[in-house]
Order: sequence, then C-alpha cells, then structure tokens
Amino acid sequence: MRRAIALAARGLGHTSPNPVVGCVILDAEGRTVGEGWHRRAGGPHAEVHALEEAGERARGGTALVTLEPCNHSGRTGPCARALIDAGVSRVVYAVPDPNPTATGGAATLADAGVDVEGGLLADEAAAVNEAWLTSVLRRRPFVLWKYAATLDGRIAAADGTSRWISSAESRADVHRLRAQADAVVVGSGTARADDPQLGARVTGLTDDEVTQPLRVVVDSGASAVKPGARVLDGTAPTLIAVAEDTDAAHLEGLAPLVRLPRAATGRGLRITALLHELYARDVRSVLLEGGPTLAGAFLAAGAVDKVVAYLAPVLLGAGPAAVGDAGITTLADALRLDVTETARLGPDLRITATPVRHTPHEEI
Amino acid sequence: MRRAIALAARGLGHTSPNPVVGCVILDAEGRTVGEGWHRRAGGPHAEVHALEEAGERARGGTALVTLEPCNHSGRTGPCARALIDAGVSRVVYAVPDPNPTATGGAATLADAGVDVEGGLLADEAAAVNEAWLTSVLRRRPFVLWKYAATLDGRIAAADGTSRWISSAESRADVHRLRAQADAVVVGSGTARADDPQLGARVTGLTDDEVTQPLRVVVDSGASAVKPGARVLDGTAPTLIAVAEDTDAAHLEGLAPLVRLPRAATGRGLRITALLHELYARDVRSVLLEGGPTLAGAFLAAGAVDKVVAYLAPVLLGAGPAAVGDAGITTLADALRLDVTETARLGPDLRITATPVRHTPHEEI
Repeated sequence: MRRAIALAARGLGHTSPNPVVGCVILDAEGRTVGEGWHRRAGGPHAEVHALEEAGERARGGTALVTLEPCNHSGRTGPCARALIDAGVSRVVYAVPDPNPTATGGAATLADAGVDVEGGLLADEAAAVNEAWLTSVLRRRPFVLWKYAATLDGRIAAADGTSRWISSAESRADVHRLRAQADAVVVGSGTARADDPQLGARVTGLTDDEVTQPLRVVVDSGASAVKPGARVLDGTAPTLIAVAEDTDAAHLEGLAPLVRLPRAATGRGLRITALLHELYARDVRSVLLEGGPTLAGAFLAAGAVDKVVAYLAPVLLGAGPAAVGDAGITTLADALRLDVTETARLGPDLRITATPVRHTPHEEI
Repeated sequence: MRRAIALAARGLGHTSPNPVVGCVILDAEGRTVGEGWHRRAGGPHAEVHALEEAGERARGGTALVTLEPCNHSGRTGPCARALIDAGVSRVVYAVPDPNPTATGGAATLADAGVDVEGGLLADEAAAVNEAWLTSVLRRRPFVLWKYAATLDGRIAAADGTSRWISSAESRADVHRLRAQADAVVVGSGTARADDPQLGARVTGLTDDEVTQPLRVVVDSGASAVKPGARVLDGTAPTLIAVAEDTDAAHLEGLAPLVRLPRAATGRGLRITALLHELYARDVRSVLLEGGPTLAGAFLAAGAVDKVVAYLAPVLLGAGPAAVGDAGITTLADALRLDVTETARLGPDLRITATPVRHTPHEEI
C-alpha cells in the first residue's frame, strides 16, 4: 500500500477534479505484477493502468488501491467492474470514497464475491489526497496558504523591498506547491507590488511534466492588473476576479473576468463566493499566495485549511506583517493551529500547520 | 571529556564572573577516580574538587578539564600548580583560557614536565561556556534575547492581551534560561504592561538550588516602576536603570538605581553603557526579555549574541510585533542569523539562532 500511495502522489497537480489514486496488483503468489496511478483527469484510473500491466496474472490476485474503487461509469468506466472482470480475488483499499456519485465500489466488489478490506494505511493515503478529500467534504477548494516572512513576521522591509527574504531552496519549494495546486491566488496588493508571473517551474521536470495552475488575481477594484502584467503572459490560464459593481471594461479581452459580490466588510470580495466560483471551474486545490490583506480575509472566512510558512532567519524590526486584519482583537479569539511538520530549507525553516477547528461549521 | 562538559554545565548560572568548568581525573590505569565542577564563584575550582575526590590515586593519572587550568592565584590558588602537586602526569583540556589574567596554565604544566594537550571536544566545551567566552572577548555580558510570539510575529493581540501566547512548556524553558543568566533585563514597556516578577522557578529544583538573576528594568524616564511592583518583591536583587538627566527621587530606597546616558537617538538609554555597567557588576550573561522597543535598541546596537524565539502556532493578524525599530529600512540591511537549533516545546516551536557577524567590530 505504501508503494500505491507513492504512485498516487505522482498524480498530484494533474488529476483535478478527480482524486489522486495509486494501485498495485499482486498475483496469487503475492508478487507485484502491475502498478498504476491516475495520471490526469479524463485518463484511465489507477486500477485500469495496473490491471493492464498485470494482464492475466491479476486472476486470483490482490489489488491494493489507495482509494475505494469507484462504482460509477464516468469517462473511464467503473473500476469495481474492471477488477471483477479481471478475476481479482481480493481488494484492499485505504480510504473509502466520500464522493456520493462514485461510492459503493466496495459493496459491488463484495457482492461479486471479492474479498474486500478497507482502512489499510488510511491516514497516509488520506494525506496524499488531502486537498481532494477536503474539497469533497467542504464543497469548495482546499486552501493552502503559504507565506514567506522574517523571524519577526515581516514580509518586506519598511521600504517595501522583499526580494529575497526567503532562500532559493524555499522558493523552489513554492514552485513545487504551485505545480500541485489547481489554482494560485493573489490579491491586488501583491499584483501591484510584485507583478508576479505565478507560474510553476519545478527543478528536474520539463515544462510538459508540470501542469500550470490557473492564475487568479483578486482585483476587486479592477485597478491592479494592467496590460503587460506578467500574469497575462499566456503561459497559463489566468482569471481576474473583480467586484460585480466595478467598471472593468479596460480588462475585457486581457483575461477572463469573473464578477463577484463584495465582502460584507466592504473590503475586497466575498471569499466564499470566490471559492464557489473556483470550485465550479473544477478547481479542487488553491495555493493562496496573497499578501496580508487577502490572507487576513481568507483566515477571517475560515477558508484556510493548511498553512506553510517559510521563515527566514532574518530580523527587520519594521515592515508589513504576514497577516493583516483577520477580525481578531483579543488573544482568546486567536486562530490556533497544530504544527504538523517543521523542516529546514537551506537557511530557512518551513513550518506546516493546520488550523484547529473547534466548532466544525460549513462556511459556504 | 564529554563527562567533564556535562559536569561543567551544572555550574551554569552560579559561577559568574567565572566560567563554568568540569574536570574528570583518571588514575594511571584510566579509571575515573575523581570528578568535580566549579559550583559557584568564590568556591573551589573544578580541578580542586576532582583532585580532592581522587586523592593519591591522581598520581601518574590524567586530568580532563573543559578549560585550560588557570595559572593565577585568585581566591582559590592556581589549578595548574594543584595538578602538578597532585602528581598528575597528563592534562587534556578542551578550550584555551582567553582570560589574560588566568592564561598560561598549559605552559606552567608543560614546564613542570606534565604532558599537556588542548583542543579535545573544544566546540562542545566552548558551547557550554558560550556566555563567559563571549563576555571575555567582547568585554560586555553575553546577551541572549528571548521572545515569545505568534507565527505571524505578534507578541500580543490588538487589545494588548498576551497571556499566554506561548505554552506552559515554553514558559518553563524561559525559567531555565533565567536561572542560567546573571541578569534578566526588561524595558519600561514590559514593566508597565506586565508588571513581571522576573524570578526563576525551575521544575525539579528547590529555591536554594536556583541562583536568582539580577532583575534589571531599563526605565529611562523613571516612570514605569512603581512602589509595589512585583520586581521589587525582595526575592532577588533588582537594579533600575534611568537616564542620567531624569528625576528619579521617588525611586530612591525602592531599589538600587543606576544613572546612564541616553541613546544618541534620544529614545531610551545607551545600550553599550548599560552593558558596561552590568559587566562592572560581574554580570557575564544577560537574558533580554524586553519588548519590541528594547529588543530593537539592542539589535541596533549589535548587542544580541543569541536569539531564542518561542513561536506559538497561533495567528492574530493584528497586535505589536516582536521587534520594533532597529534602524533597518531596507532588506539589504536586514540582520541575518543562522538557525542553530529548532525544537518542539509542547505545541510551540523554539528556534535558536545567532546573528551572522559580517564585519566583526567592537561596539563598546
């Protein structure tokens, strides 16, 4: 199963709106005879790839799958049926399929006399599918907020200089996150200050091997994105989100626009509406690279599922903070997180944390 | 030698203005026959304790000492002479004594026909004596700045609430740092906001086993420390540093006062003068627990030798930052550090870092 999880991870960034899935087929003697993973949305599922490699040797064997085999006839036919037809006698899966349209695969397999077991290495398998599982549960994209700051929490110096606070190793890591995300989101402040290109360039991978994320600029007032902006360079799709009452005629033809309601606070757009819109466009994971204002708005909306902080061992003593107003005025209301990982990236520290959800509630 | 270093560490917090030293005596067959460490200033040196335990068995044996045995006749007589008199035939030390009044012990031993070797585990032994070695080199106390902040660099919420940003584990660790320091320093902002007691309470140690640090309040305008302040509770010595032109008549009799020149910037006291004054009072290590203003001033003065940051996995989005103005306006002038250690303390992260000194210069 661990091998199947590693295979699944190869699909990260390429499969939305589908999950990543890995599959290993053992023959009746327990030898690995087939391996597969879901490579891209619209392509064959992991089981199909693995069964194809195994051929007749799958008969009487075992299939190890990271996700409960699907039961629906989508573009590639139900995998439960494919496993039955291949004569597999045992199926072990890690995580049950939470998707109402695809679930029921385990029952179908059992009804056909296949020995079925679920839950093996479920936590590890769920971790690799974290974004997709969260999006199914919350019916909005999974949001990973990343920021790079100094040890004293500054994202730039007093004069606005910020290149480069974090190390080359940290910046390469951000490109890896971009390549795994369906969309990268920034706000008007970042667009104006940095004119970012927001593409993913991953060391060791060719351009063809990287699926570029959708580049989203939250530009409520339609004032930050100008003709010639790097985000409009045509190397990847771009979407500009403006307030529904904003005159954005000058942006027509530059990039697709989406008009969204303003936030109740009057500042920026309604985050939940933005995420709804992205979800409708098959975005299942968002890398939020926004500055303090947008990060504060996402945090206030309870719309951050994971935080990755790149902390550079630098002190500035002045300059903007990583997070702006999130509606928190007293310590008792602070957003608390669990640190799930710390790592060294060159001179920097990468801290990964997930918000502690005291009262699970749907924000959308 | 590793054992000798561990013995030396037991003296931390008790030996200033002396270094911490550990010593192990092996007999001629290499068996451990004596152990000692310098327990407190004015008491016998490590070698004397160890030789006493070894007695006649030291003859023909080896002494392992973390610091080059001293050569001067202070309150306890030169250790080099004591080792010669005990008939030790070999002395292995880790770190040479940089103190001009005590150095020369190795030469004295060699002249007496003792086999002398230096440098064994020098880095480890230097680390345990980091504060003292730095104070000898810089002729001012070693300064460890500690702060507790959120992941977004805030030391309090917008309304000033800060109890408790960091975990109980982190707070216990701060008490350990206090117990190892000769002085704890805070500024008027902290004195006013928190009315801190600044004592060291160490889990597992009785009050007698902890040497309380000198409590120093930098109160330039003599306006923060009031009668009844917890720092005046008499459980440990206290020193209030005021500007030399300040009317501090109302503080006379409450605690010893020291009058110091104001900083050139006009804000606060001259940090180098403060450190000179503390050095003159035999303070060799300072734990700076100041808020953003004092921390900024120490950093601007190049007077921070080590940083210990307790980062709580909490986001606030508003509230004061850990470091205030340190005279840095652009990223190129940022104070860069090397992270030397990261650790988990309960939910928190403890990050230890040392400033990178591009151009070694004496600030005092």
